[in-house]
Amino acid sequence: MIISASELRIIVENIFQSIGCSRDDSKNISEVLVSAEQRGIPSHGIVRIKDYLGLWAKGRLNPTPSLQIVYETPSTMVIDGDMGLGMVVSRFAMQQTIQKADKAYTAWTSVRNSNHYGIAGYYSMMALEHSMIGISMTNANPLVSPTYSTDRLLGTNPLAVAIPAGKEPPFVADFATTPIARGKLEMLEKMNQQVAEMLIQDQRGQISTDPAVIKQGGSILTLGGDREHGSHKGFCISAIVDIFSAVFSGANFGPFVPPQVAYLEPKADAPGKGLGHFFGAIRTDAFQPVEDFKKYMDLWISTFRKANVIEGIENLIIPGDPERSNEERSIIHGITLNEKVIIELTGALKQLSLPSPF
Amino acid sequence: MIISASELRIIVENIFQSIGCSRDDSKNISEVLVSAEQRGIPSHGIVRIKDYLGLWAKGRLNPTPSLQIVYETPSTMVIDGDMGLGMVVSRFAMQQTIQKADKAYTAWTSVRNSNHYGIAGYYSMMALEHSMIGISMTNANPLVSPTYSTDRLLGTNPLAVAIPAGKEPPFVADFATTPIARGKLEMLEKMNQQVAEMLIQDQRGQISTDPAVIKQGGSILTLGGDREHGSHKGFCISAIVDIFSAVFSGANFGPFVPPQVAYLEPKADAPGKGLGHFFGAIRTDAFQPVEDFKKYMDLWISTFRKANVIEGIENLIIPGDPERSNEERSIIHGITLNEKVIIELTGALKQLSLPSPF
Repeated sequence: MIISASELRIIVENIFQSIGCSRDDSKNISEVLVSAEQRGIPSHGIVRIKDYLGLWAKGRLNPTPSLQIVYETPSTMVIDGDMGLGMVVSRFAMQQTIQKADKAYTAWTSVRNSNHYGIAGYYSMMALEHSMIGISMTNANPLVSPTYSTDRLLGTNPLAVAIPAGKEPPFVADFATTPIARGKLEMLEKMNQQVAEMLIQDQRGQISTDPAVIKQGGSILTLGGDREHGSHKGFCISAIVDIFSAVFSGANFGPFVPPQVAYLEPKADAPGKGLGHFFGAIRTDAFQPVEDFKKYMDLWISTFRKANVIEGIENLIIPGDPERSNEERSIIHGITLNEKVIIELTGALKQLSLPSPF
Repeated sequence: MIISASELRIIVENIFQSIGCSRDDSKNISEVLVSAEQRGIPSHGIVRIKDYLGLWAKGRLNPTPSLQIVYETPSTMVIDGDMGLGMVVSRFAMQQTIQKADKAYTAWTSVRNSNHYGIAGYYSMMALEHSMIGISMTNANPLVSPTYSTDRLLGTNPLAVAIPAGKEPPFVADFATTPIARGKLEMLEKMNQQVAEMLIQDQRGQISTDPAVIKQGGSILTLGGDREHGSHKGFCISAIVDIFSAVFSGANFGPFVPPQVAYLEPKADAPGKGLGHFFGAIRTDAFQPVEDFKKYMDLWISTFRKANVIEGIENLIIPGDPERSNEERSIIHGITLNEKVIIELTGALKQLSLPSPF
């Protein structure tokens, strides 16, 4: 089924208003989720609503959080999200970060007591509207084993960096720091397909190609795959995201990050507060006059875009290019929701006694 | 041959004093190079001296640079290295960054007109002495092709992050953002050995296992190897290091980064100034009171160190552990220099009319 972004936003807004979120917060949540659909990352879009509702039903999501800056310095702060929805907490956190960077030229915020925040790129891109560079990262519930380990110690820990340019569209890197996403593994499992080598391992630490091992104590490998291919570097990147998001803020780190689904219980001995994020904003004139910076960033982008590529490939992909194309296409052609997602969405609307357009 | 760190430092100091570096700068250069040997990264140690001397002989390294802060805001600056040795420029830049962070709680410095700076970790670890988190990254001469490209557009672009703890030793991640280092490829080629799959490609973009392809227009792949294993994420990381180091400062980016060896000429049409670095310092109390931060970082480290590992492995390796062990061992047992390095070093001493202890 095809639906326009504006129609879909209203449906999502109604859902979150009906569980007690304010009108503004509901608008904001729907914008992040619909943006994921538009940018071609449906794994972080409408399909997540059932998980958020499940957490809310169990009292693990606060629809009316009191968001507070609990620690502050001239260029940094810690925000407590009061167990609000990640989208609400993170939008507030990024707004505060941008405001602080306006004065300090850079600002850095670590967040605790938050929840799953959707697409990392959304918050980094908020900085672009203020002619700033935006950085966004989050830890996530543990599914990943570092090199030589059999324990799930880290999440897919995404990292996003958005950098404005002049004539060129912005550079927007937005990626999980694992070689494969959880959503893709689920999809392959449902289709009875195998996974490539060097992406996942079973519970004994043997490389596997069966996506079902993840439900049997297996885990995703860090970027690089094995030691010979640099998995220890992937571990470093993932660990840095975890430490900046959780050790800086006092959120739960690594193995203690609360699950983003209601059917898994948080660990009883978790030492921290909720889930953690980290945000940064850098003024475009923090290192050079704005015009010089933008011109040079244009040159970076155009140089890379013009590079030679292998046969069958049109051109080198600049981070952010595919998502921007998807977004442009969705504005013209609408958003395609698959049948399963529509059934789930209809179920949610019914449960909340809301009218369904489906 | 085995030599003590202090003896080796004096030899290196003499070399750099004899080409016109100040006593202080020579001490500083020797400390970074000997530290690489001590930490078990000899590819960035004594073996590099011949390259630095070669660049100096061609007038591409300035032994008496005038280091200047050319742009400054409350939390950021750009430093021009005046084509000095990377170790001299970077130590100054990191000192300035630490000083600024002392007031602003975080500080960020992008550097231009510099040269190869040795081990990235050295500068990040300077922050530890001030109870700060240190970040260090640099671009490097192009040897790496992004996903689907056949051009060498990026360097091995290392990234280092040093985070102090309380009772635990610090977390020190220091890694090239490629799956394999140039030095290792050279070594395999000399030994007539093959490289594992998914590390390098030939000039047409075909995966190769022959290390010789690098000298025939081939290139190193980004972390992840191929698209299916997340090489586009490795490209993002490498690109971010390049942009922060060069687009921020006005240094040469990606394909234009000047070679670190004298027998390769810099590109005539290079749009920027020398090679670029990026440094950051974050006060330990930027997000939490120092004691809380250190205690929680201890818990992060001990939790990961205690994780289950596969048979045959002692424990999960915390970033920085192997290098620290090497350093401790070198203090007791000295530094082992291989025959080739001693021959090169003796040659350099003779050329500079310095006495040789070998």
